[in-house]
Amino acid sequence: MSKCAIGVDLGGTNLRIALVGESGKILDRISLETEVARGPAHVVDEMCVAIRDLAAKHRSEGTLCGIGVGVPGIIDMQAGMVLQSPNFPGWHDYPVRNEIERRLGTPVILENDANAAALGEKWLGAASAVEDMCMVTLGTGVGGGIVLHGKIWHGMSGMAGELGHITIEPEGVLCGCTNHGCVEQYASAKAIKRMVKEAIATGKAPTLAQAMNTNPDIDPETIYQMAMHGDKAAQQVFDRVGRALGILFGCLINIFNLPMYVVGGGVANAWDAFSPAMFAETLRRSYIYKATAPDGVRGKGATAADESSSRQSTIITLATLGSDAGLIGAARLPMMQ
Amino acid sequence: MSKCAIGVDLGGTNLRIALVGESGKILDRISLETEVARGPAHVVDEMCVAIRDLAAKHRSEGTLCGIGVGVPGIIDMQAGMVLQSPNFPGWHDYPVRNEIERRLGTPVILENDANAAALGEKWLGAASAVEDMCMVTLGTGVGGGIVLHGKIWHGMSGMAGELGHITIEPEGVLCGCTNHGCVEQYASAKAIKRMVKEAIATGKAPTLAQAMNTNPDIDPETIYQMAMHGDKAAQQVFDRVGRALGILFGCLINIFNLPMYVVGGGVANAWDAFSPAMFAETLRRSYIYKATAPDGVRGKGATAADESSSRQSTIITLATLGSDAGLIGAARLPMMQ
Repeated sequence: MSKCAIGVDLGGTNLRIALVGESGKILDRISLETEVARGPAHVVDEMCVAIRDLAAKHRSEGTLCGIGVGVPGIIDMQAGMVLQSPNFPGWHDYPVRNEIERRLGTPVILENDANAAALGEKWLGAASAVEDMCMVTLGTGVGGGIVLHGKIWHGMSGMAGELGHITIEPEGVLCGCTNHGCVEQYASAKAIKRMVKEAIATGKAPTLAQAMNTNPDIDPETIYQMAMHGDKAAQQVFDRVGRALGILFGCLINIFNLPMYVVGGGVANAWDAFSPAMFAETLRRSYIYKATAPDGVRGKGATAADESSSRQSTIITLATLGSDAGLIGAARLPMMQ
Repeated sequence: MSKCAIGVDLGGTNLRIALVGESGKILDRISLETEVARGPAHVVDEMCVAIRDLAAKHRSEGTLCGIGVGVPGIIDMQAGMVLQSPNFPGWHDYPVRNEIERRLGTPVILENDANAAALGEKWLGAASAVEDMCMVTLGTGVGGGIVLHGKIWHGMSGMAGELGHITIEPEGVLCGCTNHGCVEQYASAKAIKRMVKEAIATGKAPTLAQAMNTNPDIDPETIYQMAMHGDKAAQQVFDRVGRALGILFGCLINIFNLPMYVVGGGVANAWDAFSPAMFAETLRRSYIYKATAPDGVRGKGATAADESSSRQSTIITLATLGSDAGLIGAARLPMMQ
């Protein structure tokens, strides 16, 4: 009988659960609201009911080999707990993993959501052809996941891959992590909204001001559409996003020299608006990228190293699994055990 | 019979060769001047004569299993060539590895010098107790080496670990690599000299001005002594070095979550002058460091994550093998094959 696994994407707003086959096909899924306010035990109860339903419904399709759960925040892998997460206040002393295992009698792996998404993109998405890759997720915040030799790189305590909190502007905007100038302050949905407000405050962004007046909850998608329709101020916001990502990728390329870097998360949908500035800035920031970027990106200025005949390219590209990356990657976790 | 290997540290000024035993003991060594001006064939000839002498002299002590050669610059691992190196202009089309192998009939591994030093420190130096570590070498320039699962992380084309060219000041000082604000522009011997000149130019560094007048070729060691004897301007230069390294380590810790980061190279001798600013800046730049730094460094502001009982510490420490790290690490390379 073939194997299958449950992937859970435990977000602050939505709780998504999928039954995933050995080949990565999503066999069925359930989406719920995450009722964080009702406490961890309630959320875990709801999750377990849904998992039981899915498993029972598809009993004939394969052996359930385990459950992978992706959560935004810092995970204590050994304890199976959420150490720090703005979305799950008060969960840090709740043994999520053990509580799910106790209810279902199935092995559970807890993982950071961006790590799960990276694994999903590596398995079936943009990076399926490589063994080493790195993913940056641009959502409300900025997350990251690093996959080396086909496995998530956790570091000594599971905290590796915190790419959103790399400093790109030493004296820049104050971040929730108490540092100044983190990537997250320039490339997240939250940052885009702040930068739009800053642009409006200068008095030089009348169209943005009008749009914000109409809808104070303006989202990156709307601002992206404005940029694509020629609004300069909106474009400048995405140029700033691109420059921030370019500094980040320059740093990652200099450190890792990986074949592929994947950009995902909701804000990644604005790729056309931010990627030109991102590629230009990455070229500026990393001579390794300059020597290994695909011909279309490299442009002029070839050096001896550029012309190495055995040159492999460094690819920076858009994720392909959309919001399912984390779900699929979470399901992959127990399959890899 | 026990094994031994030859380690070569092929610097722009000095060519150092050692015969190293299986346990890492340096059995014998030869130091020559690197006559770069006479071309690669001459340098390789000299190197091979010295290697032959060492091997012949110690024939009875073990089987020579190979030769490791550390070179500053970008190495094409597959081709065994020096792709880019400011110290070896015109070497990029010279097949160094094959030329040494052809002359001696012994397998040769070419490696970046900072990678070799990292491997040396991992084998027998500061990081001998861990399997994953990262080393930053502060010399004329700033280099880096990353060791994961006990092996040098090369990336897809051997260019990984270029830590000296990570951007820490987006609009900072122009670097030789064409980027602005690389670590190397704030933490290398060359950078220290530039910063001393900048301090003198402000008119607020009379003691530095006097020292520079006496010896225009003033070295980091002298400036370090001045800082240690209370000269404020000299101390400020090292504070700048420390802040640059703190931003770098914050970045590395957020990415890797490694147990150990080692600082080596000649400038590392000024540890007492730059490390206080370095630790303070790293704490500021990485909440992962804040949660995992040794108690003496962490200070106040503990959070939930800090108090995790299974907490492992992140150590940032001084290298212990001095200028032999690269030599020992180079010899280790063929032993690992």
